[in-house]
Amino acid sequence: MYRAPVAEIAFTLKHVIGLSPAITAGHMGELSADLLEAILEEAGRFAAEEIAPLNQVGDRRASTYADGAVTLPEGWAKTYSAWCEAGWNALSGPEEFGGQDLPVSLAVAAFDIWNSACAAFALGPTLTVGAVEALKLHATEEIKERYLARLVSGEWTGTMNLTEPQAGSDLGALRCRAERREDGTYRLFGQKIFITYGEHDMAGNIVHTVLARLPDAPAGTKGISLFLVPKYLVNEDGSLGAHNDVFCAGIEHKLGINASPTCTMLYGDGHYGDEPGAVGYLIGEENRGLACMFTMMNNARLMVGIQGVGVAERALQEATAYALERRQGRAPNAPKDGEMSPIVEHPDIRRTLLAMRGLTQASRAICYACAHAIDLADAGAPGPETNGDGTRFWNERASLLTPIAKAFSTDCGVEVASMGIQVYGGMGYIEETGAAQHLRDARIFPIYEGTNGIQAIDLLTRKLPQSDGACVRGYLDELAAIAEVARASNRDEMGKIGERLAAAITDCREASEYLLEEMAAGRMEGALCGATPYLRLFGLAAGGAYLAQGAISSDPSESEAGRLRIATARAFCERLCPQTQALLAEIKEGGQSILQVPAETLASFQ
Amino acid sequence: MYRAPVAEIAFTLKHVIGLSPAITAGHMGELSADLLEAILEEAGRFAAEEIAPLNQVGDRRASTYADGAVTLPEGWAKTYSAWCEAGWNALSGPEEFGGQDLPVSLAVAAFDIWNSACAAFALGPTLTVGAVEALKLHATEEIKERYLARLVSGEWTGTMNLTEPQAGSDLGALRCRAERREDGTYRLFGQKIFITYGEHDMAGNIVHTVLARLPDAPAGTKGISLFLVPKYLVNEDGSLGAHNDVFCAGIEHKLGINASPTCTMLYGDGHYGDEPGAVGYLIGEENRGLACMFTMMNNARLMVGIQGVGVAERALQEATAYALERRQGRAPNAPKDGEMSPIVEHPDIRRTLLAMRGLTQASRAICYACAHAIDLADAGAPGPETNGDGTRFWNERASLLTPIAKAFSTDCGVEVASMGIQVYGGMGYIEETGAAQHLRDARIFPIYEGTNGIQAIDLLTRKLPQSDGACVRGYLDELAAIAEVARASNRDEMGKIGERLAAAITDCREASEYLLEEMAAGRMEGALCGATPYLRLFGLAAGGAYLAQGAISSDPSESEAGRLRIATARAFCERLCPQTQALLAEIKEGGQSILQVPAETLASFQ
Repeated sequence: MYRAPVAEIAFTLKHVIGLSPAITAGHMGELSADLLEAILEEAGRFAAEEIAPLNQVGDRRASTYADGAVTLPEGWAKTYSAWCEAGWNALSGPEEFGGQDLPVSLAVAAFDIWNSACAAFALGPTLTVGAVEALKLHATEEIKERYLARLVSGEWTGTMNLTEPQAGSDLGALRCRAERREDGTYRLFGQKIFITYGEHDMAGNIVHTVLARLPDAPAGTKGISLFLVPKYLVNEDGSLGAHNDVFCAGIEHKLGINASPTCTMLYGDGHYGDEPGAVGYLIGEENRGLACMFTMMNNARLMVGIQGVGVAERALQEATAYALERRQGRAPNAPKDGEMSPIVEHPDIRRTLLAMRGLTQASRAICYACAHAIDLADAGAPGPETNGDGTRFWNERASLLTPIAKAFSTDCGVEVASMGIQVYGGMGYIEETGAAQHLRDARIFPIYEGTNGIQAIDLLTRKLPQSDGACVRGYLDELAAIAEVARASNRDEMGKIGERLAAAITDCREASEYLLEEMAAGRMEGALCGATPYLRLFGLAAGGAYLAQGAISSDPSESEAGRLRIATARAFCERLCPQTQALLAEIKEGGQSILQVPAETLASFQ
Repeated sequence: MYRAPVAEIAFTLKHVIGLSPAITAGHMGELSADLLEAILEEAGRFAAEEIAPLNQVGDRRASTYADGAVTLPEGWAKTYSAWCEAGWNALSGPEEFGGQDLPVSLAVAAFDIWNSACAAFALGPTLTVGAVEALKLHATEEIKERYLARLVSGEWTGTMNLTEPQAGSDLGALRCRAERREDGTYRLFGQKIFITYGEHDMAGNIVHTVLARLPDAPAGTKGISLFLVPKYLVNEDGSLGAHNDVFCAGIEHKLGINASPTCTMLYGDGHYGDEPGAVGYLIGEENRGLACMFTMMNNARLMVGIQGVGVAERALQEATAYALERRQGRAPNAPKDGEMSPIVEHPDIRRTLLAMRGLTQASRAICYACAHAIDLADAGAPGPETNGDGTRFWNERASLLTPIAKAFSTDCGVEVASMGIQVYGGMGYIEETGAAQHLRDARIFPIYEGTNGIQAIDLLTRKLPQSDGACVRGYLDELAAIAEVARASNRDEMGKIGERLAAAITDCREASEYLLEEMAAGRMEGALCGATPYLRLFGLAAGGAYLAQGAISSDPSESEAGRLRIATARAFCERLCPQTQALLAEIKEGGQSILQVPAETLASFQ
């Protein structure tokens, strides 16, 4: 059912987003090309054999709730333990606490595979990795000592507690409160909703990271602090103590990712303990919690992007296999009296499959490029035009690519899953087939960790203006150089990859300059009307460039994979990249049509 | 939860697609504007009060199966009876058999409303209406006498039995067989799958229309005959006789429309009766069954298009209401220290809502225009440039618009439902909210009654070449005239509706001529690679023109609805219509990138 595209993933890392030169330059620590491939190979094996079989059964049986306890579907806890024992949870964790400290790009590639195998399974560790990152950077030594090793190994899992009923995208509205205690600890009170893996039965402890507000905190986002709140208190010797006053009040019935419990969490409602309040420990400084949480959020956003890629890959593989097997009608050039053709021979089906592949592979490369930028920032690698420290350059690059990785990839995840259903025809609508689950699962990705609308606003208002636009301009110059190589290649099978890609990049440049000007002139509403089309435009241009880079690096005479890579890049650049013209036109309309009627008018249904 | 947009529907019928002039010209029989509005008003009331409450409960409880019997969710049968008693099933049925013989456009408008209220409910009568149409045109007088009145009233329901496991899009592959009997009846044997409302408990009899093959029939589609196979045999006096040898072997577990039973039907497997075989009656001539079935299919395709519109309307209404109520963050121009803004004030949300509205309304108008063309053909109304009989003209027009009504509207249905989820944010992913159901329900529409890929191929290879392209050219001339009026209007609030629309129509014209040339030159594979983008392009141009027509006919000083209509048309034409450039570019790439690798290469996952 699922076979990890190890060779394609390794190729993308090494030859498309630049891991090979980074290894050569010594920025990737102990990682070698051989080690990279060995790890991916083993991840692929584990995913296909152990995790993939959980996907459909997890969807059907779902997590269940009773009296504060959540039971994961059968097989879940056992597979999770085996996965942790094999060291997979520790892949990118700090060495000091038992991690392997491997590059983020490799960890993201592994999560690409875990998500293809079962997104609901991969989601738990995704949160744990985020918690590890936040503790590593912001927690006291004592907390690190007490918690990090067991989060790195996966013996314990982590969560992110942000959302409250009245505070979703707007965290400034949150009300969960924290009181100081004389011993330096805190007591938390309040309700959190939509907490992924907030309660479950696959780990010995659950380490919640919780945003809350101190009594004397300023209003809004500047009065939010971050706390660690363990399900079970942890004694000084590391043994588990009493159940903290943390209670799971229920789980949601969702469209998809049914095995992943989405919990309502009550802190300090008196379910457990003698004294009211859930015991919490401050992470970072008081009232600076949002900054710490953003460490986790940025990581989580990239990790959500790769969820989109993972599910798209699975949908693509299954639709392709079905299209090769299912026979209906006769393709245009099939012999008249022969049998029915496999539907893959029908041009419209093949168009669909190549579009699915292009969107999947483009998203993948964007996510990997974002991860690679994080790695290079961590490594203090030089930027392309500096000889010294490139940390700022790579941080800005990672920061720029994060909303695109999150939103473009997850939109593509939904689109590819939906196209997958379409390839199956009527069978795609039957749950048994599995194609519909991919759409149901993927549909959350554009929503959580900041809706894709929020990502687009982030790209427009925070990332585009970085270094007065120089970050975006420099990036687009790099992409344009790829287009130029493609154009100059003079290889027939490359078609018009270079020309079409260059046009898309020019559109992206024009949109960027237009939006910078509009914002500088204070026409913010109009610019915001273009945020979502701008992100899409950016994703098409960047994705097209990475696909083109893959095509440039492929020798079609060498392998089938190379030929497919070139055809995919060509179909993407020639057929999908022209959409950038339309997106640019949409952006440049500003917001007049959208803003010309008052909000209430939108409700005049009759 | 749902309020039928009666005024908007009436406006669209009367002033956008031309019902008012047709009434004036005497082509619409007894129908007057007053009667039209009274009927829609009453349909809206019934839908909102009686049917809409079934939608969510039907989804949750779903139809259930046991021992050949299907039980619909509680309340279903009762509501269906009330609906029939109120005469709704008979709206467009022949007067001779108790129908009201009202125009198809009005029936389609009513189904717009039924589908918004509950698509799974409306689906049953949709099939019955199709069966009525087929019997009316192709059945013997005896069969009409025996079946039609009770199908028209809805006392009995109808089905379409086409699909078999090996024969989906390709009906030529079907194997269900029919044997002649000396009394002129037939005996049917075989299995049909995906039969909507194939078995249920809400009507006294179920009248199956079944495609099957006679022993001496030619292979392929020219050897298919159509039969009527009742669940219960009907005696000469109209009373019900024995249970025919028809057995429901199970129902599917689907992504959505859970209340609508999707049945596997066994004909002649010996479950009932003494003699083997299900008793069938020939409809039309032997081996000419596909032509008869196409009567039903064309009707059904338009009716599926309106399902997309109906669900989109419901998703739009709910998302709009939520966006007006839910507060998060502060909109760009909101007072700094005020409370949170309703999310409708955020430009990206408002952009989404206007896009949802535009796609919904454009799809609606296309479906209505298709229905209106059917009505004018039936009425023998003159075509725009002829003085005499315009039947051929209107038949070609209906024929042209059918695949667009089906595919564009159902793609829009899925898109709008998905956007609706996005407006809800995290709440949209929770089943309780209801937004997710719309996506699950809508996702079948692009698949059944001919996948949207099949529709695109139909548009390209059969409809575009009608009258050597004159049908399409004439239609585009009409659309261009609307664009010209919009351009000449000189009304500020109309923005660039005329210019952008004119450009889209020009793109459609260019795509049409290009594709006609390619097909004439025998480059069919390349043309087929452009089929889906061509249909989308056509839908945008046509939909934009109808929205523009609505804007032209609206006086913004008169009503809020008029102002909203203009803003919607403007957002659609200015922001979405530019996509036609990209689609034209995609079409003109031909199929080189898609066809350059052999099918097997697509499976090289590693």
